[in-house]
Amino acid sequence: MKQVTVIKVGGAVVEDKAQLAALLDQFQLIEGPKVLVHGGGRAATRIAQQMGVETHMIDGRRVTDEAMLDIVTMVYGGLVNKQIVAELQARGLKALGLTGADLDVIRSHRRPVTDKGVDYGWVGDVDRADGEMLLHLLNSGITPVIAPLTHDGQGHMLNTNADTMASTVACALAPLASTTLTFAFEKPGVMRDPDDDASVIQSITAVDYAQLKAEGVVSGGMIPKLDNAFASIAKGVQRVVITQAADLQGLRGTTLH
Amino acid sequence: MKQVTVIKVGGAVVEDKAQLAALLDQFQLIEGPKVLVHGGGRAATRIAQQMGVETHMIDGRRVTDEAMLDIVTMVYGGLVNKQIVAELQARGLKALGLTGADLDVIRSHRRPVTDKGVDYGWVGDVDRADGEMLLHLLNSGITPVIAPLTHDGQGHMLNTNADTMASTVACALAPLASTTLTFAFEKPGVMRDPDDDASVIQSITAVDYAQLKAEGVVSGGMIPKLDNAFASIAKGVQRVVITQAADLQGLRGTTLH
Repeated sequence: MKQVTVIKVGGAVVEDKAQLAALLDQFQLIEGPKVLVHGGGRAATRIAQQMGVETHMIDGRRVTDEAMLDIVTMVYGGLVNKQIVAELQARGLKALGLTGADLDVIRSHRRPVTDKGVDYGWVGDVDRADGEMLLHLLNSGITPVIAPLTHDGQGHMLNTNADTMASTVACALAPLASTTLTFAFEKPGVMRDPDDDASVIQSITAVDYAQLKAEGVVSGGMIPKLDNAFASIAKGVQRVVITQAADLQGLRGTTLH
Repeated sequence: MKQVTVIKVGGAVVEDKAQLAALLDQFQLIEGPKVLVHGGGRAATRIAQQMGVETHMIDGRRVTDEAMLDIVTMVYGGLVNKQIVAELQARGLKALGLTGADLDVIRSHRRPVTDKGVDYGWVGDVDRADGEMLLHLLNSGITPVIAPLTHDGQGHMLNTNADTMASTVACALAPLASTTLTFAFEKPGVMRDPDDDASVIQSITAVDYAQLKAEGVVSGGMIPKLDNAFASIAKGVQRVVITQAADLQGLRGTTLH
């Protein structure tokens, strides 16, 4: 079975030219078909500020009114996506920038107002991804570069969490190819001691994870990330790696399986 | 031979929600494979203003410094392109947003400083377009939606005139398929009397054009548009239609051949 690698890289890395260049150098070296899913939240917040549009976050999630939807559509789908595409072309990859709307590759619906009355606005919860189309692109030698935007099939773009996009893409490919999902972020992996880079836990199973949560070793923002990762494994993704952007091969990070 | 239609729509139409919706309704009705090339200059100027970035134009062309390159990349490649893609998906078309960087479909080089010492900045003059790739997409049932941006193959995006993009696309397709290029703009066509909509000239040949220029019937901003159109015909485009956005079938506009 074909081996596909899905890499997710966050806003902090894509915002920094030197870090992004280093990441793309690493990305280029990954053998076989690959997909890059990127964030861009910091750039969106910066541009919003420059435009005099206030950023509202609830539990770390961006509230997306009409003005903010225009900004994330511009920044994720245009600025960040095209810079990455151009940089990958310069590295000899046949990169193709996509949002969920392009080729109808990921469709979602607007998130309903929560039980607590929170309205996130134009935020999309994913309904389905077209794994066949993604595989067809990969088989044509194309490297999809995916921005964290989807559409509702009725003409609206929707802002969608980049981690969710990455696991959606990996889960859609998993029935068709052996799929690895790598989250590249600032830390070298899941750590026993957040202040000690040498304390990376090399391997975590679902059983380990329950215990690590109970012990409080895994807490805060890592919980949704790991919940998402184990959900992807449950849906057929072969393994999930959590690692630093400088170590995309995942040699030193944490492997979940 | 296959029949392909390339439609170019300007910034004034894409900026107005009602006009854009009407145009896309018309676009959807065009039979056979089709490509939409869009502008977005007005939106770019508006967003630049909101961001406190000044717009400089020389002879109607945007000077593109680093800050303006970021803005046009966001606005053309993100905001305008994705809104059109989402709207076309809602109309049942398998739309795919592209810049020249995506799939390396149109490559250009940064325009050198002119003899008069004018530096347009990050503006791209087209070197080549991949007609085979565009035809492959069309043959796969895909409708490319192309933003007026290219890349230099060295990691830089470049701002490229939308009329030039449209004729580049049409000329790249012309050797592979019978290609019609339609410029949709505010006026109903090339007019003998700019104040009389009924004075549209139905048909213009290259010989007629020379005479119309000599007579001063065609002047100002229409000259580069028509020069560009006749250059496309010389390169194999079957016909060029200049018409109103509300008449995409080109029944009432001006046909150049």
